[in-house]
Amino acid sequence: MPVKKICVVVTARPSYSRIKTALTAIKKHPKLELQLVIAGSALLGRYGNAVEFIEKDGFEIAEKVFMVLEGENPTSMAKTTGLGVMELANVFYKLQPDAVITIADRFETIATSIAASYQNIPLIHIQGGEVTGNIDEKVRHANTKLADLHLVASEDAKERVLKMGENPTMVFNTGCPSIDLAHEIKVNSKLYFDPIQKYGGVGEKIDWEKGYLVVMQHPVTTEYESARKDVEKTLEAVYELDIPTFWFWPNVDAGADGTSSGIRSFRERKKPKNIHFFKNMEPNDFLLLLANSKCLIGNSSVGIRECSYLGVPVVNIGTRQNRRQRGNNVTDTQYDKKAILEAIKERIACENITSSSIYGDGKSGEKIAEILANTEIPFHKTIQY
Amino acid sequence: MPVKKICVVVTARPSYSRIKTALTAIKKHPKLELQLVIAGSALLGRYGNAVEFIEKDGFEIAEKVFMVLEGENPTSMAKTTGLGVMELANVFYKLQPDAVITIADRFETIATSIAASYQNIPLIHIQGGEVTGNIDEKVRHANTKLADLHLVASEDAKERVLKMGENPTMVFNTGCPSIDLAHEIKVNSKLYFDPIQKYGGVGEKIDWEKGYLVVMQHPVTTEYESARKDVEKTLEAVYELDIPTFWFWPNVDAGADGTSSGIRSFRERKKPKNIHFFKNMEPNDFLLLLANSKCLIGNSSVGIRECSYLGVPVVNIGTRQNRRQRGNNVTDTQYDKKAILEAIKERIACENITSSSIYGDGKSGEKIAEILANTEIPFHKTIQY
Amino acid sequence: MPVKKICVVVTARPSYSRIKTALTAIKKHPKLELQLVIAGSALLGRYGNAVEFIEKDGFEIAEKVFMVLEGENPTSMAKTTGLGVMELANVFYKLQPDAVITIADRFETIATSIAASYQNIPLIHIQGGEVTGNIDEKVRHANTKLADLHLVASEDAKERVLKMGENPTMVFNTGCPSIDLAHEIKVNSKLYFDPIQKYGGVGEKIDWEKGYLVVMQHPVTTEYESARKDVEKTLEAVYELDIPTFWFWPNVDAGADGTSSGIRSFRERKKPKNIHFFKNMEPNDFLLLLANSKCLIGNSSVGIRECSYLGVPVVNIGTRQNRRQRGNNVTDTQYDKKAILEAIKERIACENITSSSIYGDGKSGEKIAEILANTEIPFHKTIQY
Amino acid sequence: MPVKKICVVVTARPSYSRIKTALTAIKKHPKLELQLVIAGSALLGRYGNAVEFIEKDGFEIAEKVFMVLEGENPTSMAKTTGLGVMELANVFYKLQPDAVITIADRFETIATSIAASYQNIPLIHIQGGEVTGNIDEKVRHANTKLADLHLVASEDAKERVLKMGENPTMVFNTGCPSIDLAHEIKVNSKLYFDPIQKYGGVGEKIDWEKGYLVVMQHPVTTEYESARKDVEKTLEAVYELDIPTFWFWPNVDAGADGTSSGIRSFRERKKPKNIHFFKNMEPNDFLLLLANSKCLIGNSSVGIRECSYLGVPVVNIGTRQNRRQRGNNVTDTQYDKKAILEAIKERIACENITSSSIYGDGKSGEKIAEILANTEIPFHKTIQY
Repeated sequence: MPVKKICVVVTARPSYSRIKTALTAIKKHPKLELQLVIAGSALLGRYGNAVEFIEKDGFEIAEKVFMVLEGENPTSMAKTTGLGVMELANVFYKLQPDAVITIADRFETIATSIAASYQNIPLIHIQGGEVTGNIDEKVRHANTKLADLHLVASEDAKERVLKMGENPTMVFNTGCPSIDLAHEIKVNSKLYFDPIQKYGGVGEKIDWEKGYLVVMQHPVTTEYESARKDVEKTLEAVYELDIPTFWFWPNVDAGADGTSSGIRSFRERKKPKNIHFFKNMEPNDFLLLLANSKCLIGNSSVGIRECSYLGVPVVNIGTRQNRRQRGNNVTDTQYDKKAILEAIKERIACENITSSSIYGDGKSGEKIAEILANTEIPFHKTIQY
Repeated sequence: MPVKKICVVVTARPSYSRIKTALTAIKKHPKLELQLVIAGSALLGRYGNAVEFIEKDGFEIAEKVFMVLEGENPTSMAKTTGLGVMELANVFYKLQPDAVITIADRFETIATSIAASYQNIPLIHIQGGEVTGNIDEKVRHANTKLADLHLVASEDAKERVLKMGENPTMVFNTGCPSIDLAHEIKVNSKLYFDPIQKYGGVGEKIDWEKGYLVVMQHPVTTEYESARKDVEKTLEAVYELDIPTFWFWPNVDAGADGTSSGIRSFRERKKPKNIHFFKNMEPNDFLLLLANSKCLIGNSSVGIRECSYLGVPVVNIGTRQNRRQRGNNVTDTQYDKKAILEAIKERIACENITSSSIYGDGKSGEKIAEILANTEIPFHKTIQY
Repeated sequence: MPVKKICVVVTARPSYSRIKTALTAIKKHPKLELQLVIAGSALLGRYGNAVEFIEKDGFEIAEKVFMVLEGENPTSMAKTTGLGVMELANVFYKLQPDAVITIADRFETIATSIAASYQNIPLIHIQGGEVTGNIDEKVRHANTKLADLHLVASEDAKERVLKMGENPTMVFNTGCPSIDLAHEIKVNSKLYFDPIQKYGGVGEKIDWEKGYLVVMQHPVTTEYESARKDVEKTLEAVYELDIPTFWFWPNVDAGADGTSSGIRSFRERKKPKNIHFFKNMEPNDFLLLLANSKCLIGNSSVGIRECSYLGVPVVNIGTRQNRRQRGNNVTDTQYDKKAILEAIKERIACENITSSSIYGDGKSGEKIAEILANTEIPFHKTIQY
Repeated sequence: MPVKKICVVVTARPSYSRIKTALTAIKKHPKLELQLVIAGSALLGRYGNAVEFIEKDGFEIAEKVFMVLEGENPTSMAKTTGLGVMELANVFYKLQPDAVITIADRFETIATSIAASYQNIPLIHIQGGEVTGNIDEKVRHANTKLADLHLVASEDAKERVLKMGENPTMVFNTGCPSIDLAHEIKVNSKLYFDPIQKYGGVGEKIDWEKGYLVVMQHPVTTEYESARKDVEKTLEAVYELDIPTFWFWPNVDAGADGTSSGIRSFRERKKPKNIHFFKNMEPNDFLLLLANSKCLIGNSSVGIRECSYLGVPVVNIGTRQNRRQRGNNVTDTQYDKKAILEAIKERIACENITSSSIYGDGKSGEKIAEILANTEIPFHKTIQY
């Protein structure tokens, strides 16, 4: 039996963590061949140079696709996506994969979906069926409707994909590969390195050894003009709290400039002594940092997902993670300095946070590879009702 | 109250008939302003020069978007769509509409959906919720998941859109504007012109006055290599039947070359005396031609939709209209000469075909304009379950 | 010493004849490796499917680039070129050639030049330094200014490239590879096949065996609206002359529709009994057809170039070949029925047409390969004065 | 007589200074109408937000064209240019100008040239005929070969354009509009504002009032990997010299990251007390700053051009301005700390620097407008020899 060529398109740093153990499992599987395409902001230094980590992890890259238009506004997001369709159409025409994997719900993931499905290549969507509160919501469900096979991360998500009319034989709850990474971390969770020494970053050399916070706040696309104002609330709360804090710059999105310039301007004005800023970190190190932190603050999906498995307290701000299934580690709050401040205090004080396996049990990568190897994936479908 | 700017993107000849009376109603409505964008094959002579009919009908065109890549294969379909996203992103950035309308399910309609929704412009999808059997099926439902307001053409479609998790206050059954045109025709349905004299075309000058067939067969995207073989079955059946026939060339799609070259080659070989070929016709004239025909043969949606209202017999071939709601005017058959031949004979003989209003009652255009004028359309949403 | 990777981009059917023997020589040369890229209209059935001939000739194709935008107007020419730059930038990034060859002066050839030179890849321009009368003139000299090495086809052209300020050590007169093909033909020039039997075509089955004309008339870009009117003059002259004639459809260019529809409309009206129409022919067969014809009529560069070597009489119409160096085989005339008619008669009667080696002596392909193998090509330059 | 529509495409901050007074003169001229298109990095905050200055100066912007692809490497430069051709083709199709102006020699300026000339719109090239040492050299002369009218900035440049074979009636030495700005400054040259107070910037608050240096060093494209090393030499020299210095970040180009990261890293390591860094300045303020400085250091063309008129000493480093005509204000040096250091000292000490009008006498803008109003510009041409 011939080996199946599985083409995976990674378009951004956070997506890599969401797929890494599956990539390893596909690469190892005797019935599968991995064709890894790195595209978009995953190729750019400004957004953390994911491509370097990926190569360091030993993956061979079949194609690199430069497709990000400058502008960081909604128009350039749309144009980046359009360019992505054109470029990825070429890539799939060239690689002739037996199936293509598109990951989650970033705006440019629909480019992968269109380029594959329009060329009659079976499309696999990873992590569909979840619910959030901005353009990602539209993109994720549109990906579902373009995809032929659905590998979702929770029971909740599976049920939703089925309700949308997908074929039950083509929907599997595999959990999320990011939990596989958390699983490895959890077993041996000591923070063995000095973050500032290893990653540099900017700002004061904070005294993190007795406990620290982590912040990661992204702009929310449909509200991008207020991104600057929103991040200021968090900055003020964290500044006032005066606990040593590691703060991560946002990834590329419309409004990144808003969030980034909000942070930059606050730094210039207040020169906060308790905050140290990082651009990014290797995924494993980042998880270790989280696992040892007092609390994660912001609106990253890592708070909902990996932190639920790790049992790390989270203060989730604003609408970005709306309606995603949560463990008992999360407190939700609004863009309000006082509310954020109170929520952090309450979370830090909380003692009974438990680990949850809503999003997986640490074996997702292998499960995904097995399903790919053993499922015949069609390239067309009709709605079930 | 300020006037709402409604931007409608027409990308192909058949889409124009599906929206024409709505365009008129929007243009006339005191609370609405029409921004008409003509794109894709609607601009090209090869595909019937829809733009000329549109201008002749008195519509002002705000922008023309050249976006069709040559190739007529799945790769060029994908690239055309990507280019469409880039170009339409510019257009919407420039026109700043209050809402954008995307029509039905042709492959390039998702370009309109992405360019609008990514720029946070409310997106309206016309004619979602139906079911067919190829790439259109994926595109249509993906459009639904990107759209904020849904104006569907039948109760069946409405129910399906709701099941997919859309907000019930944003789903309306308006019927299809193409039925409005059929309604006008029905009232006074005499074929007042000589089709060959008015439209030229190629082939023998057939004696149509005592009754004639109409054929319109498009390639089916997921089966595009067999397009040539498929059309030959219909050609042979119609040739053997020896009834005067008007045959319409297919519109642009991957495989159009297959269908077209099948037709061309048959013509050279058999020089059929009973078939006259047209490239296209003004929509009204085409409906009049249908209304006076003995039977429509092929796989056009006109057979399911307009012909059900007109009560014209239809032989529907193959999978292209699978699972679309039908009136009693339709017989389904496969790509098989004998089956097609029998079906045509049976249909022609049938006496009790009645008009149906499944797809509208002739007032769709006005209903659409009223809903647009009176509904506040959001530009984000979350799934209902 | 490592082998040099030479990437050649062929974008159209006529360009293939202009480079074919050089491709063969590069492929065979021990110090060179051929990377053949087929792009643009060379991939499209409508324009003669050059890619099929190329594959049949035994060349392996490294990349296929679909880049032609429909429209056949000046705007789509520009957009096709822009898309070509984007696509070819990817291709060269992927192939990492040691040098890139761009051929002559078609509008899209500048895409090759930009994609290579902007990526600091040495650029070789074939057939620069000539003079004509439309957009090709601008494109050709712009290619010269972007190129690092110039392989020209005549002494006249060499002198012109030097005058433009290019480095004399980087300009070589190799003659034109198309003359190599003419050279092979000349040795054994009997028309061994029946053109109509072998190539089909449309129109009457003319009696060509006692002598025939060949016509090839392309639209002239800067005058594209008059293309239809211009071709009518030639049609009328040839029709009146009533000598058996093989007429070739024009290749892709803005206005092709003008010329083509002019031809089509004339055919419908006059049903000329002495003209048979071909879409295209394998290059060798075409040369053989020319070598045995009474006269070539139109504005193809084949008349100036190959026919001068073959000693075939030519009536050259209009401005398209303005100021290209000519042999004594050519008579120039304007778009005027009477003038064309007289010129054809005069040419056919003429007895003393001799073969000329202005454009090469039949060894161009090998000369080109030798120069590529033995020249170190820089990737930047400054003007000589 | 109808007014002539002149479309000017500004793609970067420095180009704006090179055209500003011509824009004003075109806008005022009764026979001309200005269509101003702002494109590329001129729209982006990262590169100085030229668009804001332009709007503040009272110009109405007809179209904004987002076309910059992220990557800052040669591949993204090529793709940005290709995208520019596609987008500008749309813009010119829409605006229907009577002539288009492309400015100087940045890589993306050829996009303007292609989009205009391929659509048969007369193309005007400003500031052709000069000589430099990288990709700009190729782009500039290719622009010349695509252009129909040439408005050059010096006699030297005029002679070169003529030698390239352009029509003498279509080549005018108007001088450079940037000298017009220098002319205004010169009349009243007091530095009336505090640069740090007005523009912020980063780094120490230096004591500039008793005299200061200005540095502006861009990466050189064909050597872009060494950009980081090159800038370090200048940094070290200026650091050692310990004179208050205003340093400007480089503009967008392949390798900007090299230069920028070289600067950033030097700042972190040495924390230079005598250097203050600016992103950019309004053109007038920048000229005033130069006019009052002891010396300009780097490789900006401002040193060759505006500073020759202002009589400001310049240390020009490396190959970027090779072979541009110079006044007696310039000393050339290599990427060598000691050489740079000595050159600065020598220049500062020099007393007899005089103003030169090589590049204009302060009336260029008006001259340009007059020529545009009174010249009939063709849209095709043939080389003169």
